[in-house]
This record gives sequence, structure tokens and C-alpha cells, in this order.
Amino acid sequence: MNVLKISSGVIFLSTKHIGRQSVAMQNPPSIAGHACVVGKKEGDGPLKDSFDFISEDTFFGEKTWEKAETAMQKQAFSLACDKASLNPSSIEYVFAGDLLNQCVASAYSLRDSNIPFWGLYGACSTMAEGLALSAMLIDGAFADRIAAVTSSHFCSAERQFRFPLEYGGQRTPSAQWTATAAGALVLTAQGNGPYITHVTTGKICDMGVCDINNMGAAMAMAAYDTLSAHFSDLSLEPSDYDLIVTGDLGLIGHSIVMDLFNKDKIDISPYYNDCGLMLYDRDSQDVHAGGSGCGCSASVLCGHLLNGMRSGRWDRILFAATGALMSPVTTGQGESIPGICHAVSISVNKGV
Amino acid sequence: MNVLKISSGVIFLSTKHIGRQSVAMQNPPSIAGHACVVGKKEGDGPLKDSFDFISEDTFFGEKTWEKAETAMQKQAFSLACDKASLNPSSIEYVFAGDLLNQCVASAYSLRDSNIPFWGLYGACSTMAEGLALSAMLIDGAFADRIAAVTSSHFCSAERQFRFPLEYGGQRTPSAQWTATAAGALVLTAQGNGPYITHVTTGKICDMGVCDINNMGAAMAMAAYDTLSAHFSDLSLEPSDYDLIVTGDLGLIGHSIVMDLFNKDKIDISPYYNDCGLMLYDRDSQDVHAGGSGCGCSASVLCGHLLNGMRSGRWDRILFAATGALMSPVTTGQGESIPGICHAVSISVNKGV
Repeated sequence: MNVLKISSGVIFLSTKHIGRQSVAMQNPPSIAGHACVVGKKEGDGPLKDSFDFISEDTFFGEKTWEKAETAMQKQAFSLACDKASLNPSSIEYVFAGDLLNQCVASAYSLRDSNIPFWGLYGACSTMAEGLALSAMLIDGAFADRIAAVTSSHFCSAERQFRFPLEYGGQRTPSAQWTATAAGALVLTAQGNGPYITHVTTGKICDMGVCDINNMGAAMAMAAYDTLSAHFSDLSLEPSDYDLIVTGDLGLIGHSIVMDLFNKDKIDISPYYNDCGLMLYDRDSQDVHAGGSGCGCSASVLCGHLLNGMRSGRWDRILFAATGALMSPVTTGQGESIPGICHAVSISVNKGV
Repeated sequence: MNVLKISSGVIFLSTKHIGRQSVAMQNPPSIAGHACVVGKKEGDGPLKDSFDFISEDTFFGEKTWEKAETAMQKQAFSLACDKASLNPSSIEYVFAGDLLNQCVASAYSLRDSNIPFWGLYGACSTMAEGLALSAMLIDGAFADRIAAVTSSHFCSAERQFRFPLEYGGQRTPSAQWTATAAGALVLTAQGNGPYITHVTTGKICDMGVCDINNMGAAMAMAAYDTLSAHFSDLSLEPSDYDLIVTGDLGLIGHSIVMDLFNKDKIDISPYYNDCGLMLYDRDSQDVHAGGSGCGCSASVLCGHLLNGMRSGRWDRILFAATGALMSPVTTGQGESIPGICHAVSISVNKGV
């Protein structure tokens, strides 16, 4: 029996719970298929060979950016099912969410799917949240086939969170570029991996950062907190992973996370990267501090990272997508930006 | 082994999956505590004796409506923990979501809780979604104590979805009144009930309704679809329940659901009610077609319904919260309103 000591005493934990925030899968679910669809800018970046589809048209053939994002997400989901050799009608649940108000890209992209639907809001941590909950429901014997889907679109996000594009607002050096990208994956109870072995669920962390042009700094503490909990709960070290990737901290958040670990006398730098730094070439693509958006970590995971695991480049990855949970209204009311980070262990070996 | 026939062949289902959309708990989790906090108008309604706290102040002591909603949700969560005799620090996960853009009432209300957090967006179906996922994670042995929380606030919703209150817009007869209310409950692996025995997860249904002043009509098909799936998957009839409640369909949606069942030659009317019809006195409270908002079904469940189960009035309830998944942007772009409904079976007996 697992036990946990808290301020009010000792409590007993359920079978799969380890420490305060982590769980271990008894029968690690397998990633049967994964796909990513991106826009032109992302397709010009260093990961261009990893995407399943690159659209030359920001509108993805639609009339508005919101409908474009919907179409992009729909395509990613369809490709992930194809690559898993599964008919979408055999998927038992889909977890989906995005950045748009009321998560409409997800609702409209899956409206005609006829699949039982769980809507999420985890901001840019959505892919980790969907992946984690999918794995837990499969390991809990509630389903055999679950999909997790998310997306973001530079143009729909800019006008919702910042300014109309036509305004031509100047971006600060700390600003990040919202990826026009969607990622989808299908998890199954049986399969040849990669497998989801552990999940560490994030708590909301707020460092008091109020600058919406510095999301990386706002989310860095959440990433540090979740990664620390993961290592502590599971008695692991950074070197137990071939690669540890945070979601979309960009240059500033990524360096804050390393600083925070350095204070604990832990050097994670040999194993640590960030999807926001991987998606674009910062020198030539004018993205300032890096990429962001639900689609950033989702497209890097569903292309570059999982392809790399399948090709033998990495055996064990810790995928820790990060999200900023504010809105323009809360920012306008002087609130600081709460961050969250969920971490998912992915391994080519079932038995870790 | 459970099997399911789909167009592309027969597929095998995981142990707890029954039919296309339903699951049965192996060890039904128990509702250990539940609480609801509401505004003055709700406190003047027919369910006034069931609320844990009624605020005379729409602002709940805060300076903005969004902060008021946050405070209200925080209070409901705290009261639910108290009533479950659990320290909030012993809660292993919290599922939360609301109607505000980026679900900020939930993020800010739980920001300081230090509890692993899963953000949901299910619109007004959020309480059923949180309750269902909480039950599944507990039954899957991932946790012993999980909370589900949600809220809505008339004033924050009106200005976000419709008009500034100062505008004094006229409401149509089919319009519903967004409840100023929050509900929270704590689910535990062990306990004396009421128990969550089954979950039927909703698919997105869109009847093509584009009128945002007629949400009940937009969501009615989703409610019918999920309830039908529930009865069919589990070989149940409406009379197997003492009470079947939909979330917030109001007068119009409620009557559409009865019409749809009548076409199947099923009379659910003796067992059927709707939280949007229960929360207010439509004759005297000027709410037009009834109540709505995440807080509507959540506060009716966490007060009136669960109190009624504890007092022996009802032994078995089917709680089917409904949500409309559009946004003002999609409505402005001419899109129809997708609806969703998740159903949760609650019973005073563990072994149904």
C-alpha cells in the first residue's frame, strides 16, 4: 500500500498512485498512430520533414481563421486514425481542446465524428492532458481506443488574445509565436508502442508574472514544479530519460527551468529541450523567444518526437506540455498569469 | 468479453465498456461531500432551502464579476471538502471548468489550492463531465479522492456571450437565464454513497439551430441521444430511475426531449425533469424559458438532488447535464450550435 504524508497526517493512496502527483500504468497503453498538420511557416522550419501535411494556405481552404483551425484539427485526427489503421468509428472516446474561446476548434472539428467527446481546457498543455487522461481511461479498462487532439492557429490566436493582425502590432523580444499546427494521436490498449508508462499531473503555479508577452516566464515555475514532482515521486533522475521536453516555454522559460534545477544542484541541460525552441529556427524565422500554442507541443510530439522514438533515436521521453491559464479579461483586471504543466512518460519498452 | 458491431465490423470492448457509449463502475465511487453557493435570485427560488450559501451581493465581495465567480466557486469547493470531512490538501485531483473564456473562474479559484488540476471545457455539461471522469479515475485505481467543480455567473456570462448589462437588451421568450451558482463535490473510493454506478459519454449533436436565444432547442437532440444510448447500452428503461434530470434545457428543450422519446413510443414524462426548470419559479422570477449555465445543473445536483437522495426521497437518479459548444465568434460566422450531454447514474445502492 502506498502512503503519503501531508500536513494533516498520513493518507493511503490508491494502487496506481505514487507520491503526491504521479501514477504508473499497470498495462501501459500504446500509441498506435499520430499525425500533425501545420501551416507554411512551420513547414519552413527545422522540423519540416516530420509533418504529415503542410498547408501553403493559412486558411486551409476555409473562409475564416477559426474554420481554418477546425479544418486543420480535423485533418490531423483523420490522419492519426489512418496511421493507426483504425476506422474513426471504432474510436471509443476523443479528448480535445484548444485555445479559442469555448474551445470551438475542437467542438466543430469533431462535431460530425459521432465519437463520445470529452472537452478539455488546458491551454497549451492540452496534448499532455488529453494523452494522460486517455492513458488512464485505457489502463482503467474503460476503453481500448482513445484519441487526443488539439490545435492552435497564429491568426485566430492573435486576434483573440492580442490585436487584429491588420494593426501590425510590434512584438516584444520575449513574445512567442503561436504555432499554426494541430496534432492528434490514437492510444490503444494493445500495440507495439511507444507506450505511456507514467503520468504526473500538474498543479497550478503562479509566479506573479503579469506580462502577457512573456508567457515562458509565467509558465516556467509550473514546468519546474511538475518535473521535480515527477523525479521525486518516481525516484528518477533526468538522466533516466533520453530527452525531457517542455511544451512551449521558449528561450526565456527554458532557461528559467534550468536555473531552477541548478539551484537544486541538478543539471538537466544535457537531456532538456523545449518544443517552442524546436519548432522554428529562431535565427531566421523571426519568432522572437520561440513557438507557443497548443499546436506547438502537439505537432512536435506527433511528428518529430514520436517519429524519433520509432526510428530508435530516443527510447524514453518525458513530454511535459505547459499552459498559461489566463484570459485577456483577467489580464485586463490586473491578474497575474497562472501556469500548469502535465508530464507524460513515453517509452519504447512496456516495462520502463 | 463485450463486443460491439460497427459498420466496419465487430470490435471487442474493454471490460467496463458496455455498448457504444456507456461504462459500468466495478467499485462504484461514493459522493462524500457536495456543496452549492448561489446568488440572490437563485436564493429566492423554489430550491432556496437546498443551498449551502446564498450571497446577497452579486459581486461576492469582489470588484469584478469574473472575480466574483471565482470567489463563489472557491467557496463551493471549500464547503464540499468540509462536508466530506476532508482537508483540501488530501484531494488528489480536481476537475474544473466554466463558461468564461479560457475557463478562468476555475483556474483562478484553484490557483492556490496546490491540488493536481485537470481543466475541462464542457460548457453547461461540465459538472457531469467532471463527475464522470472523477468516477472513472477512482474506479481505475488512480486516486481515492477527487473533486469536481464548476460555476457560472449571470453577469460575467451576459457580457461575454450577449450584451453589456447596461445595454438593457430585451430577452426573447425562448431565452434562458444564466444561473449565478457554483457546485462542487468530492468523490471517494470508499464511503456510504450515493454512488456513481454508470457513465454514458455524449457525442456532439447539432440539429442546425443557429438561434443563440434558444439554447434548449439546440441541446435537446444531444440530451435525447445520450439518454437513448444510456437506456439501450444498459438495457434500462426510464422507469428504472426515480428521477431523470437533464442539465439546462429549459421549457423548450425539455418538451423537445419528451417529443423525441414519444416518437420512440417511450413516455419519460413521469420520471423526467430539467434543472433549468427546477432552479427558478418561471411564473414569478422572469427567467423566460428557464435557467442555464454550468452552475445551474451543478447547484441543483449538489443541493436539491443529492440532499434528496440522502433523505430517502430518491434512490436512483440519472443526471444528464447538457452543454452548448458554440462561441459568439462561431455564431457570428453563421455556424449552428453543437450540443453535448453526458449522463451519470447515481444510486444510494452500490450494487445496481
